[in-house]
Amino acid sequence: MPGEFDFIQWVRAQQKPSTLALLPAGDDLAILRWPANDLLLVGVDQMLDGVHFDSNLHTPRAIGRKAMNRNLSDCAAMGCLPAAAVTTVASHRGSGLLFLQELYTGMREAADLQGCQIVGGDTGSWEGKWVVTVTILGRCEGVTPITRRGAQPGDGIFVTGPLGGSILGRHMTFEPCVAEGRRIAMAGATSMIDLSDGLSRDLPHLCEQSGVGAILDVSAIPIHADAIRLAARDSVSPLDHALHDGEDYELLYTCRRGVSKLPGVLIGTITENTGVFLSQAARVERLVPKGWEHSL
Amino acid sequence: MPGEFDFIQWVRAQQKPSTLALLPAGDDLAILRWPANDLLLVGVDQMLDGVHFDSNLHTPRAIGRKAMNRNLSDCAAMGCLPAAAVTTVASHRGSGLLFLQELYTGMREAADLQGCQIVGGDTGSWEGKWVVTVTILGRCEGVTPITRRGAQPGDGIFVTGPLGGSILGRHMTFEPCVAEGRRIAMAGATSMIDLSDGLSRDLPHLCEQSGVGAILDVSAIPIHADAIRLAARDSVSPLDHALHDGEDYELLYTCRRGVSKLPGVLIGTITENTGVFLSQAARVERLVPKGWEHSL
Repeated sequence: MPGEFDFIQWVRAQQKPSTLALLPAGDDLAILRWPANDLLLVGVDQMLDGVHFDSNLHTPRAIGRKAMNRNLSDCAAMGCLPAAAVTTVASHRGSGLLFLQELYTGMREAADLQGCQIVGGDTGSWEGKWVVTVTILGRCEGVTPITRRGAQPGDGIFVTGPLGGSILGRHMTFEPCVAEGRRIAMAGATSMIDLSDGLSRDLPHLCEQSGVGAILDVSAIPIHADAIRLAARDSVSPLDHALHDGEDYELLYTCRRGVSKLPGVLIGTITENTGVFLSQAARVERLVPKGWEHSL
Repeated sequence: MPGEFDFIQWVRAQQKPSTLALLPAGDDLAILRWPANDLLLVGVDQMLDGVHFDSNLHTPRAIGRKAMNRNLSDCAAMGCLPAAAVTTVASHRGSGLLFLQELYTGMREAADLQGCQIVGGDTGSWEGKWVVTVTILGRCEGVTPITRRGAQPGDGIFVTGPLGGSILGRHMTFEPCVAEGRRIAMAGATSMIDLSDGLSRDLPHLCEQSGVGAILDVSAIPIHADAIRLAARDSVSPLDHALHDGEDYELLYTCRRGVSKLPGVLIGTITENTGVFLSQAARVERLVPKGWEHSL
């Protein structure tokens, strides 16, 4: 039966030389020469079989791509450039070397597209289901990172694309908005977040950290065709799918009014009073979060 | 039922101000001001319930401490200083907020002891067993990191402490040899690794990457009292426990002869010919690896 060291040897043979990593993978730690005076952004994200993907349904390559793209999307949400990643995989014992190689290839393909290098990792096997984590290191290269904390009353609220119904497939195949995030940051956005838990949860996160509120113009919220397709199957409206479904991985950001050529569409306004509201015709009602939260 | 955001809120309240992290945890990524001209070392390690710990047997605080200490031990093995960590936890649904808080507290206690700060993470729950990962960021601060690649023929082989039988409890309670690793690196060690998979696997890893071989003096290998206690229960000799058991987390390193005041004991010599051998009285035999490897 193949073992983790067969996999590690295979990974090493895949690696290309780099100016960032001073050492081929396989030591206790990777050694990176971080650009002087550049900030270091770091985050980690895990994917659990049966929660974020289904190993009976999705190919290992698609699973790997999603694991990496979720983290690249976090870089996008700060306006920074992905530089390096380390990953872990807990494989379901008996799945074999090929599944793991395909998963790694998916991660690497997604990383390559954004100039990000996988510099290390840890592999194990167990009787449990698959678990994949990616830790991402990003750099600013001259652009101030955009946090969730800078939204100001009067700012416009923007989203980079249509929302809802990603469960029909887009949650596995989305492309992280790294270039858009960069443009948004350079245009002077005041705050930004990527939509992973759903608009009705992520916008309150942003507002809470900025100490502000928001009012959304219902008629302006872009609804994805998948939300409409999904609504035809269940009893939930397309709008509710757009508001509450998770894993859109579009960018939600705020910017002062009057900045031109911003990516995406204007969907609302930041308010001084806290609380997040929906405005439709003459009615204003509170937006109740229904997006994803892991219960403990 | 409490959710992940209850936990995130609790974590945020724990955090202390820092010169390294420019932002409280809870954004898409943490923002760090990495010291200019200092190398950045990065690695990740996962712990699986039933493989690396047993959630029915071990307290969540002990599990958290081990998760962090395994990574601090990787820093020790490079001679670098732990600076920051990001972590993930997949919790078994229904375990509640307290288990998670205790686990986090264990990680933080271990990190605090080494001046390392937890700057971000990701929490989820599922029907599966517990999974904990820690990504560690280390810095050199003027000391050249020690890899597995520099062992030279004629170098002495050293180990910082007695080996074997850690399964009796030490694998949960060990202290990472960060200060020792630093002293060893400053003394001019040529290569280093921490003993996680067992001497009979980790020494070949080091030799392979350095392109050398090794001969160990059996009578010099320090055997832990736990190895002797365990041998009294099973049919494996204390020496075999010392050679093959994993999770000692002592440092194994090589250094040219004649350097004084090195931590630990001399157990063998690096050879030009590849292969790892045991020397006992007048006999020399090949050391066959039996240490831990995850089968895929």
